[in-house]
Amino acid sequence: MEEVSFINGKTRLYGIVGDPIEQVRSPEMVTYEMHSRHINAVLLPIHIRVDEFDTVIPHILSIHNLDGLIFTIPFKTRARKLAQFVGPQAQAVDAINALARRPDGQWAGEIFDGLGCVEGFRRRGYNLKDKSVMLIGLGGAGSAICAAIAAEQPRAMRIFDLDAARGERMATAVRQISPETQVVVGTPTVQDMDVLFNASPVGMLGDPRLPIEVDSFPAELIVFDAIVKPEQTPLLALAESCGCPIVRGREMMRGQISKLVDYFVAQKAG
Amino acid sequence: MEEVSFINGKTRLYGIVGDPIEQVRSPEMVTYEMHSRHINAVLLPIHIRVDEFDTVIPHILSIHNLDGLIFTIPFKTRARKLAQFVGPQAQAVDAINALARRPDGQWAGEIFDGLGCVEGFRRRGYNLKDKSVMLIGLGGAGSAICAAIAAEQPRAMRIFDLDAARGERMATAVRQISPETQVVVGTPTVQDMDVLFNASPVGMLGDPRLPIEVDSFPAELIVFDAIVKPEQTPLLALAESCGCPIVRGREMMRGQISKLVDYFVAQKAG
Repeated sequence: MEEVSFINGKTRLYGIVGDPIEQVRSPEMVTYEMHSRHINAVLLPIHIRVDEFDTVIPHILSIHNLDGLIFTIPFKTRARKLAQFVGPQAQAVDAINALARRPDGQWAGEIFDGLGCVEGFRRRGYNLKDKSVMLIGLGGAGSAICAAIAAEQPRAMRIFDLDAARGERMATAVRQISPETQVVVGTPTVQDMDVLFNASPVGMLGDPRLPIEVDSFPAELIVFDAIVKPEQTPLLALAESCGCPIVRGREMMRGQISKLVDYFVAQKAG
Repeated sequence: MEEVSFINGKTRLYGIVGDPIEQVRSPEMVTYEMHSRHINAVLLPIHIRVDEFDTVIPHILSIHNLDGLIFTIPFKTRARKLAQFVGPQAQAVDAINALARRPDGQWAGEIFDGLGCVEGFRRRGYNLKDKSVMLIGLGGAGSAICAAIAAEQPRAMRIFDLDAARGERMATAVRQISPETQVVVGTPTVQDMDVLFNASPVGMLGDPRLPIEVDSFPAELIVFDAIVKPEQTPLLALAESCGCPIVRGREMMRGQISKLVDYFVAQKAG
């Protein structure tokens, strides 16, 4: 038969909404994850212009065989109001990146950037509970990573962003999520730290800088960089040269995709 | 890499809009046709409820990487008003089944059911020009088949529908499309006919009836049945037993898919 095997009339639709859209990687990765679980679904790129988002998206949700959306730049904050139920991570950072249809026709929202990072650590066997961690960068992904780390109940968190107000806001969020965790807003350091997380853009796309002023790391420090391009950032290169275990942005992305599909499946089941 | 190869951020979207949607065959067949032409595109099933069509569809057209829609039951007539440019077949039957984005952002509409039937004949080497044809059934697909046959300039057309008004309306359309064709509205007969077209539902899904009262056909008569399920209708079974050449609904469907993709490509190119 002259037909493809991966789509038919019964295929359920998911989408990633962004502007621009061509650079997104979720369509091929989430669709793979769906198919590996024997779910007849595809995740589409959906290009909506910024000024059309608020009027168009509610109608996209009227497609009856569409079961979920992922939101990327610049829509994560404004997507929150589409959800009638908002998960704890999304409440902490006031943004969502996933919207899932429930059996009652209402929509549940959560953000998975941070949960994906923690899942990447879990897959490596790294536990964050009772650890001391440094987190640099509290933007969209960084604030979600901050909330997800806090949910793991580390002993201490030191967090930093060039925007001081972000630091204070996320420190408050950490205290709400994990009252036992000692949280401090302050400049980057790895002294007494078990894990260093970079969620700032420093080191992205050929930027030769480090997000922290150091010449070396202690070999027992675990170093994570959320940056996906390049795969080997200056930070990770230095960490590897010091013998540190590293966790890459790609591992966070894989962890996030797994968690996202878990969420879509769970919300659909009700 | 843990990813699929058939969708990514650059994939262009097409959809088939219907209610219900699970039975449609276009997603696997049109997507195959696109891929065989090395077009990075998928055709999705899009389930819109009847009472939501008019409000939702204009917003679906705001998806900037969506290049076209196909409409099936029950939307072909009301989809016509979405098109700023309407092709000659669509004008004749006052309905469209394809809406294609043009480079200027406007939308062009045409109906391909009939053109697909004629394309199916062409692939078999059967020409309809100067032939005498009988057409039974002037509903959605039947009226489109009527207009497409007329465009081939047959010598004579006899057309029939249980709804007499449809017969008169399509006779007028035939006279406009092909003034030289002698068109008559009348009960089904194969006397002096070269081709018999069935576009009525008689013989569908286990219905044992014939759409015409006959015991046999002359062996030189070409017999077409638009019905896809079952593939072998009572009409086609009788025709085969009489030694007649037959053309199946599936051949019309294949012809239509080819013509639809030609149209989407041409409109996009401008």
